[in-house]
Amino acid sequence: MEPNIRNIAVLTSGGDAPGMNACIRAVVRTGIYHGKNMFGVMQGYQGLINNHIIPMNARSVSNILHLGGTILKTARCLEFKEDEGMEKAFKNLKEKEIDGLIVIGGDGTFTGAQRFGKKYGVNVMGIPGTIDNDLYGSDFTLGYDTAVNTIIEAIDKIRDTADSHDRLFFIEVMGRDSGCIALRTAVASGAEAVLLPEKETSLKDLIIKLKEGVNTKKSSSIVIVSEGNKYGGAWDIAKSVKRKFNHYDTKVTILGHLQRGGSPSGFDRILGSRLGFAAVNEMLKGATMQMVGLRGNEIKLTSLDVALHMHSYKLEDDLLEMTKVLSI
Amino acid sequence: MEPNIRNIAVLTSGGDAPGMNACIRAVVRTGIYHGKNMFGVMQGYQGLINNHIIPMNARSVSNILHLGGTILKTARCLEFKEDEGMEKAFKNLKEKEIDGLIVIGGDGTFTGAQRFGKKYGVNVMGIPGTIDNDLYGSDFTLGYDTAVNTIIEAIDKIRDTADSHDRLFFIEVMGRDSGCIALRTAVASGAEAVLLPEKETSLKDLIIKLKEGVNTKKSSSIVIVSEGNKYGGAWDIAKSVKRKFNHYDTKVTILGHLQRGGSPSGFDRILGSRLGFAAVNEMLKGATMQMVGLRGNEIKLTSLDVALHMHSYKLEDDLLEMTKVLSI
Amino acid sequence: MEPNIRNIAVLTSGGDAPGMNACIRAVVRTGIYHGKNMFGVMQGYQGLINNHIIPMNARSVSNILHLGGTILKTARCLEFKEDEGMEKAFKNLKEKEIDGLIVIGGDGTFTGAQRFGKKYGVNVMGIPGTIDNDLYGSDFTLGYDTAVNTIIEAIDKIRDTADSHDRLFFIEVMGRDSGCIALRTAVASGAEAVLLPEKETSLKDLIIKLKEGVNTKKSSSIVIVSEGNKYGGAWDIAKSVKRKFNHYDTKVTILGHLQRGGSPSGFDRILGSRLGFAAVNEMLKGATMQMVGLRGNEIKLTSLDVALHMHSYKLEDDLLEMTKVLSI
Amino acid sequence: MEPNIRNIAVLTSGGDAPGMNACIRAVVRTGIYHGKNMFGVMQGYQGLINNHIIPMNARSVSNILHLGGTILKTARCLEFKEDEGMEKAFKNLKEKEIDGLIVIGGDGTFTGAQRFGKKYGVNVMGIPGTIDNDLYGSDFTLGYDTAVNTIIEAIDKIRDTADSHDRLFFIEVMGRDSGCIALRTAVASGAEAVLLPEKETSLKDLIIKLKEGVNTKKSSSIVIVSEGNKYGGAWDIAKSVKRKFNHYDTKVTILGHLQRGGSPSGFDRILGSRLGFAAVNEMLKGATMQMVGLRGNEIKLTSLDVALHMHSYKLEDDLLEMTKVLSI
Repeated sequence: MEPNIRNIAVLTSGGDAPGMNACIRAVVRTGIYHGKNMFGVMQGYQGLINNHIIPMNARSVSNILHLGGTILKTARCLEFKEDEGMEKAFKNLKEKEIDGLIVIGGDGTFTGAQRFGKKYGVNVMGIPGTIDNDLYGSDFTLGYDTAVNTIIEAIDKIRDTADSHDRLFFIEVMGRDSGCIALRTAVASGAEAVLLPEKETSLKDLIIKLKEGVNTKKSSSIVIVSEGNKYGGAWDIAKSVKRKFNHYDTKVTILGHLQRGGSPSGFDRILGSRLGFAAVNEMLKGATMQMVGLRGNEIKLTSLDVALHMHSYKLEDDLLEMTKVLSI
Repeated sequence: MEPNIRNIAVLTSGGDAPGMNACIRAVVRTGIYHGKNMFGVMQGYQGLINNHIIPMNARSVSNILHLGGTILKTARCLEFKEDEGMEKAFKNLKEKEIDGLIVIGGDGTFTGAQRFGKKYGVNVMGIPGTIDNDLYGSDFTLGYDTAVNTIIEAIDKIRDTADSHDRLFFIEVMGRDSGCIALRTAVASGAEAVLLPEKETSLKDLIIKLKEGVNTKKSSSIVIVSEGNKYGGAWDIAKSVKRKFNHYDTKVTILGHLQRGGSPSGFDRILGSRLGFAAVNEMLKGATMQMVGLRGNEIKLTSLDVALHMHSYKLEDDLLEMTKVLSI
Repeated sequence: MEPNIRNIAVLTSGGDAPGMNACIRAVVRTGIYHGKNMFGVMQGYQGLINNHIIPMNARSVSNILHLGGTILKTARCLEFKEDEGMEKAFKNLKEKEIDGLIVIGGDGTFTGAQRFGKKYGVNVMGIPGTIDNDLYGSDFTLGYDTAVNTIIEAIDKIRDTADSHDRLFFIEVMGRDSGCIALRTAVASGAEAVLLPEKETSLKDLIIKLKEGVNTKKSSSIVIVSEGNKYGGAWDIAKSVKRKFNHYDTKVTILGHLQRGGSPSGFDRILGSRLGFAAVNEMLKGATMQMVGLRGNEIKLTSLDVALHMHSYKLEDDLLEMTKVLSI
Repeated sequence: MEPNIRNIAVLTSGGDAPGMNACIRAVVRTGIYHGKNMFGVMQGYQGLINNHIIPMNARSVSNILHLGGTILKTARCLEFKEDEGMEKAFKNLKEKEIDGLIVIGGDGTFTGAQRFGKKYGVNVMGIPGTIDNDLYGSDFTLGYDTAVNTIIEAIDKIRDTADSHDRLFFIEVMGRDSGCIALRTAVASGAEAVLLPEKETSLKDLIIKLKEGVNTKKSSSIVIVSEGNKYGGAWDIAKSVKRKFNHYDTKVTILGHLQRGGSPSGFDRILGSRLGFAAVNEMLKGATMQMVGLRGNEIKLTSLDVALHMHSYKLEDDLLEMTKVLSI
């Protein structure tokens, strides 16, 4: 039987990701299309607790599809991990008769949503929004594709100056636990090597690889370093390499927070729109405690339980092999 | 048993697409990595016939990963459809002892490759390279993702001026037989309506939709028109609409050939690299008369026969529905 | 003696141009900084007549610096050319006690402002905002620099596909009366030729030039056509050329309205900010009936009278010469 | 009397800058147009010493106009500061009968050129190519405009995430001795404050400014820090501020070498083309020991002596004032 949901709230939580606004727009307009009252919660779970919940109409989400960041803002919220915080949040929802909650974020966000849904029986749907692409149940998370484009555009610029000066660059990209961004951007930028959190690369092998580049007359070399790499950040690695290999002038760039921003790519706008559209439709058909995700070219549901307990991204074997073969 | 292939040639044929250079680089370097001699054929099949075939080494494909177009150039070639043309092409390959041929292009390209491979027993592999995303056996063709990004960046710019002037814009995008580009860019740009070659949309419905936008106080409206639309191009449709609906100042933009160019997106660079890498590896393991494609997150083979005879892209139901629901 | 101005309104009129929002922000915040009440007029002079005038504070112009278009919208307004329209406009300003009016636009905008200022004694300042760069008294008009960047990015993309196919492209850019955009983008994109409204170029000479390119083995050729060219638009010229020169496959692209949009360049953001800042400061010091402009690296005033009656942009001799010399 | 120059060499030296390739193209093609033999020197002065000097024709500089970096590469060269190094360089030029030398770079480059020209009577022309915009005699140096655009695009992205999280960002940009880049990008990005090498800003004032932003409900704040600032780099300043002002979550980004790269803006392509064109033309008319520069909209000569001894860029008063007024 379909639930009788009348009022739905949406929030973004955790790190912001490009495409979140496209997704918020889709959630709000799909709800309105079905005659529901829609609400936006500011600053993620903090706004639930602080009762910072605002009514939204179709015009509230005009002209946001193409903007980076999130108009609902986001925050990490310790208070929501406590019973007292959850209680306040529930009280606020109840007061406004909100019976559906859609959360956009990563696994921290889903953990909160799952506990909250279980405890209070609120209908809850999760949408994978994080640039890290590290959630089980969706081939891609919202924001990841844009982040890859942002990073390779930065590396293309750095390659210009690296080539002009015969330099070796160490470039640190995001991905504390997952090497997905590092591996993909290494392939996409033609990097000479990549250091990943999941994989031990000996400094010795790295130096051998760089020396091969010298022998084959490469005019510059670029090494992508995932921030979670075992040898420390890009600065530490650069220092260690420099001690033993000093053919090039060595430079370091930490790309930092610009990786999170920017107008979402077509891929992320479409993904955000599809996921937001599906999350509302599925909720109205009775789904709860589920994550919507993209698998192949189809939108599929995965229970939050499963999404949270399965290991997510596995480094693709062909991509790993390619980082060696294609940079000869 | 693995074939004893020593010399491999690669060509691009049909319309050019961003990511072709990334793919050429992957083909050449993967071959060299395995100790093969690699050749580039200029201007597609025309170069095979004219014996415009040049040896390539690892440095021949340096610094091309990020460039649009194709360094091997491309052309449509009627002569290769004739027996005489094919005969010349084979003679040239034989002379150079080239026993493997990798072609990057669309269905016209594959038709030629298949006939050629069958007739002369040359090992042939196909790589789907076309912005149209209309080939069976691969969720995405090379260049499509970049084209979508290029188009939505152009539409974002047009939206600026449309909003500032309360205008109605008709924007024509590529896709003579397939509405894939039009449908996806319509969702990604928040277009108010889209006209597709696969689907009859009555002008009456379109005008109703536009009037709704006026009622809900939209300050501008954008209609995406696929070049293959039944009502003719964007100019004809704009004229027909204007006769019956004249609320806004009406403008037309034909995006044209800029849709084909530009530095490939991360997605297309990775896709081109994976497909080129796989095409060589599979050929060396014995595959022939196959297309390499991406399905889900994996590289899969499809025989050229099947790829050419199956209907390819089907408009996604949720995307079609979304063009109505999300632009309220 | 300094005038006692308390309430200032700002409007944008004519074609929109990137950087107008940066300029509106500067006007509003500079006024507020000096303790004035600030107002925005919607849709240019039409909003003056329709009394669509809204109070603005510092937050009204938050997060607009980087956006294309104009948040105040713009329109062409015939009614303001009539005495009756002006009378209504003045009545509305008087009612709100607005004693200063700042207009951002081109020469049509300034003509209206000048008549209005003279007739009613309202303090009026003009800011040159148009992508055409055709106003006397400012080396650059707001939006022109961004438009050049937008156009060359489009041409770079077209060059990719032109090179890949050995094609001849005719690309039509904006500039009905002034060849400034065409000449500059021709130099900046390395076009083989350019057709300008100010200058007769014989088709014969154009064809000679294109043939030279064939002789020197150019793989593609690009001709920039200003929309105001004497031979008609790019389509007509392409047709005429094709009749007598058919070495390449010939294509035409009309860039159209995407030339007006997009996030303003650094140059236009700074220019818009400086001009808006200066317009308010100068008005408060007593200036009226003046245009603020950039000359060299300094902000200078020119009376609207002079700005409107002097011939503006003159094609630079060295740039004209360079279109011949540098494309050999 | 015009000198009888037959062979001209061009080199790039110091840090690379976008637009150098456009300039090299203009130098080479202008020389060829006048019937001269043209040469490119690799790696700046080092290539003069090492006799790494290659003949160039019109096709050598095809398709480089739009590329960042420099195809001639660049390096800092200590050896050229010694008499012995200069002697070798001259010997190599003499051997090839090169009687004109055009150098593209900053003041270090010009110092070398001037000494070399004086000592050996070689005809020498300088072109200002550095992103720092710190040379007397030209309103703009080559690469500066592109660098500003690159930086503000990065800051726009960071603003997305700063706004979403209510954060305070310190962003370090290039400019060890000159605050030109920092000041301009601060205005162009709407930064809340800027720290410049030329100007003492007390931490106390900075904190007052940031607190005002909190009071006026700014959702994020961005402080631009020039790398040459007296308080140390962005990290040090962030730490000092954090100790006394902890309203926002504080983050730091060092933009680093991506500021040097990227496809040149229209402005820099035109500037590079004009300067290269003028340098050759003026040399052929007899000029030597001069720098070509842009003043207003005209190309002017300044003797290298004067260019090297005059103080260059002075922070514009209106821009300084605007950083306070416009970010309220």
